[in-house]
Amino acid sequence: MDTQTASRGGRGARERIMQAAGRLFYRQGIHATGVAALTAAAHVSTRTFYQHFPTKNALVEAYLRSYQDSPIASERQLARDELPPVERLLAIFDPLETDPSAVQRGCPFHNAVVEAAGDIPDIARLVEQHKRAFRDRLTATAAEAGAPDPDGLARQVAVIFEGAAAYAASCNDPRVAADARTAAETVIQAALAPRTR
Amino acid sequence: MDTQTASRGGRGARERIMQAAGRLFYRQGIHATGVAALTAAAHVSTRTFYQHFPTKNALVEAYLRSYQDSPIASERQLARDELPPVERLLAIFDPLETDPSAVQRGCPFHNAVVEAAGDIPDIARLVEQHKRAFRDRLTATAAEAGAPDPDGLARQVAVIFEGAAAYAASCNDPRVAADARTAAETVIQAALAPRTR
Repeated sequence: MDTQTASRGGRGARERIMQAAGRLFYRQGIHATGVAALTAAAHVSTRTFYQHFPTKNALVEAYLRSYQDSPIASERQLARDELPPVERLLAIFDPLETDPSAVQRGCPFHNAVVEAAGDIPDIARLVEQHKRAFRDRLTATAAEAGAPDPDGLARQVAVIFEGAAAYAASCNDPRVAADARTAAETVIQAALAPRTR
Repeated sequence: MDTQTASRGGRGARERIMQAAGRLFYRQGIHATGVAALTAAAHVSTRTFYQHFPTKNALVEAYLRSYQDSPIASERQLARDELPPVERLLAIFDPLETDPSAVQRGCPFHNAVVEAAGDIPDIARLVEQHKRAFRDRLTATAAEAGAPDPDGLARQVAVIFEGAAAYAASCNDPRVAADARTAAETVIQAALAPRTR
């Protein structure tokens, strides 16, 4: 066991590679981050790198899965059962407003699919799965809020949320999150209006 | 003149490189498209390529500028003076709905900024300029429609429009454009309501 640990770059090598990937893939982009930059940032040898990840794509996949294991702040808002469902739907915009660095580079899943450009089917599948899971949670929350068409409302909120991250990244403009929240609020109120009145 | 034309790969070499860039950068991504792939697709030598574009980034810039010279279908909708302003604002979603291939890969400007990741300031500036110009036209159209806060309405429509392209690309789901249009319609009607009533 000790021998194996040593040959794999010591304790924590995998963890350090994952941390380097999380930082560099998100900030610099996936294509722009080569294995050399990753090994340097993680303080591991190239040999150690490939012992943990047979290909760079395997690391990209692990990088995206790590977001599934520890969901981003916006996703966690949907689990805040102390809030009424409508407020939970709007709370997904809070982290984008309070932490501009969270939107400057947009959504890591979306960015991965832009970079992979359909060339890496595993990545595209992972992103689709992730986006669908998030939308399913929005649908459940919209149903709880009493929306007559929870799926339709969830689809609209999801599009606005994606727009917030993408547009903020395009324009490097943190105000975009507040605009998105205002739009989502109008759409949610309009969807619930027939029941509220 | 003839000699110079010949040394630059014959008539149309620049045009062929631009066409190859337009296709490959958009479909495969910018990082994934190397100079070798571009010269092969354009039927030019590497020497000819660099005579026209000193760096690959110069070609990326020319590629984005070509979209400014001939605006995409959604932008052209804003110039359709035969439509009432509210319909013009909604018509930007038409091309996304009728041509799924237009959204499958999202917005070329947004994608360029995702790939450039802040590393190519000229690209980031070009994208910001482009997004701002589009939003300014939305603001003018919103003002024409009688919106009490045309800038605020334009910002919301812009976020939803960006979401349509980005989310359709993330999920590979052409229905997203219709969801975005529905959301934009609600937001526009709500913004105009105080004056309509």
